[in-house]
Amino acid sequence: MRVTALAGGVGGSKLLLGLARALPPGDLTAVVNTGDDIELHGLWISPDLDIVTYTLAGAVNPQTGWGIQGDTFRVLDSLERLGHEPWFHLGDVDLATHLHRTGMLRSGATLSQAADSIRRALDVAVRILPMSDQKVRTMLATDRGRLHLQEYLVRERTEPVVREIAFEGIEAARPAPGVLEAIDAADLVILGPSNPLISIGPILAVPGLSEALRSRADRVIAVSPIVGGRSLKGPSDKMLAQMGREASALGVAKFYAGLAGTYVIDNADAAQRPAIEALGYRVVVTRTVMTTLEDKERLARELLALAPVARDARA
Amino acid sequence: MRVTALAGGVGGSKLLLGLARALPPGDLTAVVNTGDDIELHGLWISPDLDIVTYTLAGAVNPQTGWGIQGDTFRVLDSLERLGHEPWFHLGDVDLATHLHRTGMLRSGATLSQAADSIRRALDVAVRILPMSDQKVRTMLATDRGRLHLQEYLVRERTEPVVREIAFEGIEAARPAPGVLEAIDAADLVILGPSNPLISIGPILAVPGLSEALRSRADRVIAVSPIVGGRSLKGPSDKMLAQMGREASALGVAKFYAGLAGTYVIDNADAAQRPAIEALGYRVVVTRTVMTTLEDKERLARELLALAPVARDARA
Repeated sequence: MRVTALAGGVGGSKLLLGLARALPPGDLTAVVNTGDDIELHGLWISPDLDIVTYTLAGAVNPQTGWGIQGDTFRVLDSLERLGHEPWFHLGDVDLATHLHRTGMLRSGATLSQAADSIRRALDVAVRILPMSDQKVRTMLATDRGRLHLQEYLVRERTEPVVREIAFEGIEAARPAPGVLEAIDAADLVILGPSNPLISIGPILAVPGLSEALRSRADRVIAVSPIVGGRSLKGPSDKMLAQMGREASALGVAKFYAGLAGTYVIDNADAAQRPAIEALGYRVVVTRTVMTTLEDKERLARELLALAPVARDARA
Repeated sequence: MRVTALAGGVGGSKLLLGLARALPPGDLTAVVNTGDDIELHGLWISPDLDIVTYTLAGAVNPQTGWGIQGDTFRVLDSLERLGHEPWFHLGDVDLATHLHRTGMLRSGATLSQAADSIRRALDVAVRILPMSDQKVRTMLATDRGRLHLQEYLVRERTEPVVREIAFEGIEAARPAPGVLEAIDAADLVILGPSNPLISIGPILAVPGLSEALRSRADRVIAVSPIVGGRSLKGPSDKMLAQMGREASALGVAKFYAGLAGTYVIDNADAAQRPAIEALGYRVVVTRTVMTTLEDKERLARELLALAPVARDARA
């Protein structure tokens, strides 16, 4: 069964890890948000691509969900001595990834090629595609001014109030090679439990992406990143509220309406089922919180089990 | 007494360290070779500037004479895992210097400004000037083809036979801001015991540099990097021979003829004194080998003591 999963950072990666364990190698393709890519110290940093790759390589720092387990910070400490404000965490092993990617890009390679080179070097069997090879930047208008998403997330610790989200460059962006094909050929497309506004949102905004999902929504499953009115990780809940949306499983369901045929919510949100069904979704209620590796694999298998039904629904 | 010293890498740095101990802070200016600068992994690396800065900061690896004492190699090891051939030694702390420099250059700063920023961050009181802010590359024609100097020195371990040395870009290079002024204002100019062909040679080749020295050769002292027919460090002897020159104190004296009024040789080479004097030099014979810190400071003080005589000679 061919599965394509759209993912941002930590939440999406957890599910990807579960899917990678539940599927034969090569059957899984990840389409990853690159709107939060940032250039720092002359390096092209792709936080979500790296989180996904490191997670699938078994190398991610389990405490944070990003970065490399046991990484050191010698370069960053030295940069601080040279007068830099080290607000963005860059471990030494992680930095090699950025040097490698930046070098490839400067030599004329695409972000897709760099991502593929990195995942292969780290023995990751899952195909990892950036959403686009063109530069897209998620910029936030906040009460502290205009911020790059990473500035908001890391430097400002999500404290500013978000008023507007813009994906700069999105009009000129095209889906990276293989992205539309991976969606088209998939028996199941999964919108992972990532932040809908800043992780899945940029992917959906790439011209052609939403249309591709919409035309085969019967095979698309979205997993709510909001459980009991709170995001499991990151500022999804706060941002949804600040943007005038409901910070709930239902609120996210409205966001994905028309793109996914099936919507998966946590047991804690079972009461929202009728309202979500009223949006036209088939609703599946289960345990979506992934703490252990077993949780990830169990949820992945539950999602995979939904596929044949989705396919029948097409007929 | 204002002193300006021309220096390449390890040998020149040792003498600079001695001079820095013998002079009040601020009286010493180093003009440093940048012909062996190299771009690797998207980083602008200035090996000689860094050797000089690290040495004067007391941070240099004493085993090698370059790199940072106690540096780790996490990034380089990780780059190797990503498929890179790690022939150029890049420690983690060292790498921060390159990131910082590269970032400044990309933001429009000059190499001079980057060098100054780095030496100040490392609390180095000696003024450190690159020979030029323009890009100059020392390229070697060898029996293994055309090599960047660092490829010859590090990757090929000086094994190829050198047939020709070219300083690419030298015609368009101008002395960096302050270089000619530092030579002009100096009571003493010292050509350190660095490789004459590839360390001091590029500096002398910067348009205007040799003329500046020639016009005040009475205040210029050159220290032979060859002792007993061998270079103290690096391939000077071998390269001189391959280039059809004499690998001796005398051979280097011929190279510097007209540029320096005084030539300092080691006791081991006392027999060459008459031949060197015949070239028009005042010759000083002393112990030039610098093993301990005391050696460096003693040689520095001996050179400084030569200055007043040089100044009298002008009158």
